Amino acid sequence: MARTQGSHSEITGPRIRAAALKLFAAHGYAAVSMRQIAREVGLQAGALYNYTPDKQDLLFSLMKAHMDELLSACASHVTSGDATTRLRNFVDFHIQFHMGRADEIFIAYMELRNLSPENFETIEALRRAYEDTLGAILEAGLTEGVFDVPDPKVTTRALIAMLTGITTWYRPDGYLSPADVSEIYWNMTRKAVGV
Amino acid sequence: MARTQGSHSEITGPRIRAAALKLFAAHGYAAVSMRQIAREVGLQAGALYNYTPDKQDLLFSLMKAHMDELLSACASHVTSGDATTRLRNFVDFHIQFHMGRADEIFIAYMELRNLSPENFETIEALRRAYEDTLGAILEAGLTEGVFDVPDPKVTTRALIAMLTGITTWYRPDGYLSPADVSEIYWNMTRKAVGV
Repeated sequence: MARTQGSHSEITGPRIRAAALKLFAAHGYAAVSMRQIAREVGLQAGALYNYTPDKQDLLFSLMKAHMDELLSACASHVTSGDATTRLRNFVDFHIQFHMGRADEIFIAYMELRNLSPENFETIEALRRAYEDTLGAILEAGLTEGVFDVPDPKVTTRALIAMLTGITTWYRPDGYLSPADVSEIYWNMTRKAVGV
Repeated sequence: MARTQGSHSEITGPRIRAAALKLFAAHGYAAVSMRQIAREVGLQAGALYNYTPDKQDLLFSLMKAHMDELLSACASHVTSGDATTRLRNFVDFHIQFHMGRADEIFIAYMELRNLSPENFETIEALRRAYEDTLGAILEAGLTEGVFDVPDPKVTTRALIAMLTGITTWYRPDGYLSPADVSEIYWNMTRKAVGV
């Protein structure tokens, strides 16, 4: 029985998270009820509570899973090399990771206000850890004497905002391939830091 | 009587819009009721309908007022001169205009999904008109032979996303003055377009 329940949970958990992501992105966290999420996956509202204690937990687990995945994928893509190489890897990685995740990005930005204070702290710490990845590359480029960056912290935020902006306009059926987009953003980034 | 009503309307209208802006930004459009907005300004829910036909109208009028103000302020700040001068004026203007308007920007981005199709079209057209202001500057810089911009449309979106990002982190009590921020972002922008 335990095994069967485990299997159910493995199938149902992701379906619940996918439904919550879709509904939160479409209507906003505050406007979505646990009942609606249950209906979306064909569960009774009561049964939903076997998988998640409440809506806050669902929001937090969506945002945390997104940040954890971002950080671990980034760590495996942006590894070694000089600062310019790592910056290029970071730009390519960030664009490729964010391109198919418009809903996740929208929620990550928009629903911060709906996290409990402790959950907000956890997500903020992960967001800062991600910013620090780029910050460390900029600092390395300064040490190597190849970047011209007056304020690495502000530059980090400016570059991340610029790169993340693709989620608001990029469409796979448009005239630009993902590689074209990477190339344009890489060239802007490169020039902006003086390489 | 008409005059008195007019005066009431002039005072109450802005208070209603301010309350709606605050509540939409805090909780999201879908989660806020007309009753809550009325309570916030000390009106009966019924009386609110003397000022606005419905919540959609309120959201649309907030977003339209924001875009109209943005476009007319931009037109008066970014006027003449060569492309580099106009780009600098655009950057300074955009930063200064957005700095004190975190709620407006948040809503302008987040609540697009809650506009009716016709209202969405109107706001989108205004947003495109604003993008075109920067697009025209980039095209002028290409014509003058001073900018190096492979795709003015994408560059426009990238720069606007980068500049607008300040609303997510800038705090007036931080270590940077508005002039410092403008200087850092201007230098990144300038270098990104090859000047």
